[in-house]
Amino acid sequence: MKTYVIRIDAPDKPGLVHAITGVLFRHGANIVSNHEFVDTDKRRFFMRTAFECTQPPHDVVPAIQALLPEGASVGLAPTGKRDIVILATKEPHCLGDLLLRATYEAFPANILAVISNHDTLAPLVRQFNVPFHHVSHLERDRADHEREILDCVAQYQPEYLVLAKYMRVLSPGFVARYPSRILNIHHSFLPAFMGAQPYRQAFERGVKLIGATGHMVTDELDTGPIIAQSVVPVDHTATAISMAQSGRDVEKVVLAKALKLLLEERIFLHQHRTIIFD
Amino acid sequence: MKTYVIRIDAPDKPGLVHAITGVLFRHGANIVSNHEFVDTDKRRFFMRTAFECTQPPHDVVPAIQALLPEGASVGLAPTGKRDIVILATKEPHCLGDLLLRATYEAFPANILAVISNHDTLAPLVRQFNVPFHHVSHLERDRADHEREILDCVAQYQPEYLVLAKYMRVLSPGFVARYPSRILNIHHSFLPAFMGAQPYRQAFERGVKLIGATGHMVTDELDTGPIIAQSVVPVDHTATAISMAQSGRDVEKVVLAKALKLLLEERIFLHQHRTIIFD
Amino acid sequence: MKTYVIRIDAPDKPGLVHAITGVLFRHGANIVSNHEFVDTDKRRFFMRTAFECTQPPHDVVPAIQALLPEGASVGLAPTGKRDIVILATKEPHCLGDLLLRATYEAFPANILAVISNHDTLAPLVRQFNVPFHHVSHLERDRADHEREILDCVAQYQPEYLVLAKYMRVLSPGFVARYPSRILNIHHSFLPAFMGAQPYRQAFERGVKLIGATGHMVTDELDTGPIIAQSVVPVDHTATAISMAQSGRDVEKVVLAKALKLLLEERIFLHQHRTIIFD
Amino acid sequence: MKTYVIRIDAPDKPGLVHAITGVLFRHGANIVSNHEFVDTDKRRFFMRTAFECTQPPHDVVPAIQALLPEGASVGLAPTGKRDIVILATKEPHCLGDLLLRATYEAFPANILAVISNHDTLAPLVRQFNVPFHHVSHLERDRADHEREILDCVAQYQPEYLVLAKYMRVLSPGFVARYPSRILNIHHSFLPAFMGAQPYRQAFERGVKLIGATGHMVTDELDTGPIIAQSVVPVDHTATAISMAQSGRDVEKVVLAKALKLLLEERIFLHQHRTIIFD
Repeated sequence: MKTYVIRIDAPDKPGLVHAITGVLFRHGANIVSNHEFVDTDKRRFFMRTAFECTQPPHDVVPAIQALLPEGASVGLAPTGKRDIVILATKEPHCLGDLLLRATYEAFPANILAVISNHDTLAPLVRQFNVPFHHVSHLERDRADHEREILDCVAQYQPEYLVLAKYMRVLSPGFVARYPSRILNIHHSFLPAFMGAQPYRQAFERGVKLIGATGHMVTDELDTGPIIAQSVVPVDHTATAISMAQSGRDVEKVVLAKALKLLLEERIFLHQHRTIIFD
Repeated sequence: MKTYVIRIDAPDKPGLVHAITGVLFRHGANIVSNHEFVDTDKRRFFMRTAFECTQPPHDVVPAIQALLPEGASVGLAPTGKRDIVILATKEPHCLGDLLLRATYEAFPANILAVISNHDTLAPLVRQFNVPFHHVSHLERDRADHEREILDCVAQYQPEYLVLAKYMRVLSPGFVARYPSRILNIHHSFLPAFMGAQPYRQAFERGVKLIGATGHMVTDELDTGPIIAQSVVPVDHTATAISMAQSGRDVEKVVLAKALKLLLEERIFLHQHRTIIFD
Repeated sequence: MKTYVIRIDAPDKPGLVHAITGVLFRHGANIVSNHEFVDTDKRRFFMRTAFECTQPPHDVVPAIQALLPEGASVGLAPTGKRDIVILATKEPHCLGDLLLRATYEAFPANILAVISNHDTLAPLVRQFNVPFHHVSHLERDRADHEREILDCVAQYQPEYLVLAKYMRVLSPGFVARYPSRILNIHHSFLPAFMGAQPYRQAFERGVKLIGATGHMVTDELDTGPIIAQSVVPVDHTATAISMAQSGRDVEKVVLAKALKLLLEERIFLHQHRTIIFD
Repeated sequence: MKTYVIRIDAPDKPGLVHAITGVLFRHGANIVSNHEFVDTDKRRFFMRTAFECTQPPHDVVPAIQALLPEGASVGLAPTGKRDIVILATKEPHCLGDLLLRATYEAFPANILAVISNHDTLAPLVRQFNVPFHHVSHLERDRADHEREILDCVAQYQPEYLVLAKYMRVLSPGFVARYPSRILNIHHSFLPAFMGAQPYRQAFERGVKLIGATGHMVTDELDTGPIIAQSVVPVDHTATAISMAQSGRDVEKVVLAKALKLLLEERIFLHQHRTIIFD
């Protein structure tokens, strides 16, 4: 018996759950977990069902597709690990945490390679026997740098790209190559601080909570759909430096949480909203 | 168009969601929200569906009941406020918060009366034009005291009893009169401290988190199924007294949250577990 | 024996704690709690000491002042309740919570009066036997409206003004009348949303945390020094309306916490930073 | 200029801060940070001061000692990394996190060796070029097993022992060899569950928060003074297995936080209480 996940995203209409579960039932699927949600604001229906089946349920997808209104999408995949490539810069905390989880814990990622614009992290990555590629951005323009990174990524054919504190802005052209398939981690504050040195600004303002946001990357910088967020408290004894240190613990936990949700196919993106069946 | 909530709790079998949503669909119900959950451990199915309907959907219940295996229960109710009676002792924080919410905010409770074994809270309750009954426990045995409270409660015929820092233990006989219908708020710590003066014990041990647990009352003291929990941090500068003060803020928020879930019929109890569709 | 709080804010120099505690010691003060902090970034020294004394320690202030470098300030006050006036608009949750705490709990505020630009909250306030003033903003300009509010406040001579969801922007002239003496509560998100309908924007973006910030009011709207912050989690099942509801619980707890810190004289403001000795 | 930390733990008496800072001042110490706390309940004074000095301040300790009442202790140490040995069993999450931090981040620990009663973790430890010792507990009694571990630890002369999910109970004799120098991480729940399979019990009861407690090890199992605690929310969709998984993220963050506080000499133990200057 293998386990599969089917994901449906469709304009809402009455009777959808009834019709879809009927198809699964007739194909001998044993439903293990089932989530659905109707965004009444957008009139959109989302469903994620995990089920066991003795034989590959390929004809389930066209059978369900036939029931759905125009504009629907249906995806089916066996559960299991997903292939990812990680982009990083110099900071080890998020990258190291993902390497540990993927190597020694039950975490649904195969890390195929790590690419960085610096060579700082090479010893960490190689210690885990994962390929490390140093693609420097120095003395070249962004288009040229991104082309080499894209070529490097392409040879691994990953399902998702993960930005584990990759400190360079991706161009719209880069993002368009992996639509809804790039995950980023971003520090966050209450309130938000724009521009340079956000921890410095947070410090000056007396911020009491330091947070992190895991989000999908879209064309707009740091404003893609949100997958996971968390915060830790800080007080006035924190310096700008120690606030940045505090931020790292929350960043690594939030990135791992968001990535697990993504790789287990628990996330639906619809315009800027995220529907998360956790 | 009125809104109704149907709740189903049944042994699991294949095709339940399909069959149930079919009944609703054929009765012209417009599903507003739908949650279901299968406890794979207990092989039990739980479903809560809110739907709009132009006419009272009375025949929906027998139609669904007919589909379900033996041991199932089906409940149907219009959405709206529920009648409660509150038991309290001397502390005003939880009681005052519920009175405020029920009087001035969108909170699904009609507070029919407050009963206390002291008269300390009479001015607070009467200020909200809610009947206050002082039923002293002094110079009488517990059975006699409980009998008078039960008589007092009975005249109001509430759907639920809420213990808002009621500091006396209820007998199994009392609890049996309102099975799965009594909600309590209880301070909680990591780790738990048994016996007298829990805040004193928590202080001595250097506890760093003060919490509260909202739970249903069963025969076993303070161990009924858990509805909501929360914590607040404390540090070594806290005294045993200030730790108790910190606990009050979290108690009142957790009690209100648990009560709202209960009154909106979002809670299923099955043995000691709680399934909460929030 | 009465308890006093002395507060010192001065340019840092070596030996300050030694010198100051020497003065207190020689005046027979019994130190109950003592906090100090040096902002090494700004080279500024902050100290708050609570002490018991058999007779009023008036000559302590000039004796300490004489030891301090230029630019220092020293404040002395007995511990106890502080007089406040509350400004509100239509929402009852923060106002009701403060009325409850001030009336029935150990909370260090005397609420002298509530002023609102609507009459919605009159029944709530009068129920607590607190004067309520309705100062409508309709059909008049802001200067005229603020003048009437300032006149109304002035008759009560409060130590602090509290904006308990007062939904109108105060002019710099108004703020200048109560410098560092106006506390506000403001919803907060990760990330922040500027402009109208913040909960709508947060909903569209899929925000996972709803927060509140208690801060001092300065000329710049919603950007004064931060006293307290907290967050609650929300998920995709939240609507824009339910996210606003979730926000209210955290707003009222954060406002009460910030106000308690302020009234107990635990807050130092220095430029935009807040030093909080809790 | 080197930085030092002086720590004082003494019966309280008037003028202590004044007298101690006077000594530091006369020795040319430049105070970087200063915390003190009087436990008014126990009448005990605690002080931690970090200061810069051009020459080793050895005569500061006797000078301060001379001022203090009987029963006082004074400790002085330069700031910097501290030597630790880690004991573990089979789980990699806490151990891996500490290895990462100590190797690639600014974390104040030298991990001299890892000792385990299983060989599961050998590849993880050796990947970081840290000595790994497998000391099996099979087919021998506890005294014999502990003797071999103590011998193994002794060759490294660590300042602290860290139990990173070491799943065997230490005897009082073992603990007595490293008094107040052994740190443990322990899962925690609201309420606590005694006995076997705590996650199973928590699951059955419908627990909504999963936590971890970092504490010093004393003779009494899992009840030593608490250093750090944290919780994460879980809901009814969690299984006993996924609750255990949720617990691991919080365990590793809490253990790292508690260890950093310990190694930076920010913790005072007094009977069961912990005074933490963070």
